[in-house]
Amino acid sequence: MILLGVDPGLLVTGFAIARVANGKTAIFDYGYLGMQSTETVPARIARFYQFMTEKIVTHKVTHLAIETPFLGKNAQSFIKLGYLRSILYLLSEQHALTLYELAPCHIKQAVTGYGKASKEQVATVMATLFPALKTLGTTVKEDVTDAIAICMTGLGRAAASH
Amino acid sequence: MILLGVDPGLLVTGFAIARVANGKTAIFDYGYLGMQSTETVPARIARFYQFMTEKIVTHKVTHLAIETPFLGKNAQSFIKLGYLRSILYLLSEQHALTLYELAPCHIKQAVTGYGKASKEQVATVMATLFPALKTLGTTVKEDVTDAIAICMTGLGRAAASH
Repeated sequence: MILLGVDPGLLVTGFAIARVANGKTAIFDYGYLGMQSTETVPARIARFYQFMTEKIVTHKVTHLAIETPFLGKNAQSFIKLGYLRSILYLLSEQHALTLYELAPCHIKQAVTGYGKASKEQVATVMATLFPALKTLGTTVKEDVTDAIAICMTGLGRAAASH
Repeated sequence: MILLGVDPGLLVTGFAIARVANGKTAIFDYGYLGMQSTETVPARIARFYQFMTEKIVTHKVTHLAIETPFLGKNAQSFIKLGYLRSILYLLSEQHALTLYELAPCHIKQAVTGYGKASKEQVATVMATLFPALKTLGTTVKEDVTDAIAICMTGLGRAAASH
């Protein structure tokens, strides 16, 4: 099983990819895709599609984990996140990926043991688990840790379904 | 110039394709893609992508016209329309299509001469221009006439930009 966790954004998309083999789990690729606000939305959508396609094909991804849609700060950001979620839905069909949609509270529960944990608490746990994250810039770190948290929660979901 | 006008929907998507050659305009393909509410959203998104890709490739489409996003009846339908708009954005980049995003009032203005025309007024004008539409079922007719109206408005936009 190769599981890709994604925290999509039209400026910064965090991703993390884990392999489960012989009972051992390893997150072997994580990082982010940065895009510019000067690029058109269609251009960014196409770049997001291209980037994720390459990750899926290169690493032979079999499972995809994303957050469930929830109405965020405003309708504009809500619909823009929907754009990228749509691309992930398309990719899950094109590559026959098992799709896990995870509620934010389940992700917090899985990572910190507490469903109402703050973003800071999640970040603290992730920093302990992945010390290498310290080298990332603060503006992208949260998107990457969120993606790793989504990835870890997806792994738990997959394990529970066996 | 081959222009595809689309009125996307997760149940019924209307489309219309027009060719402009030697100063003559002809809408040579129109109809709809029907999908079932029993299908998953990812499966419908993938089918929509496949259907539109085939139309674009088969008819060598060069221009794409869609309505601008607007907050409709509820947030749920808003985000679902965003899913399909995202796929159209992706296709416009993948096939290097010129993209026209048209405000609803401009479509009504272009078709009826009145920006605040009712859906019924638009339908009446379209029925006069395309008598063959009468044979379509009433549940899908409106989506097809909307797509033709979007297509016609896109043709006007293209003509104005030359």
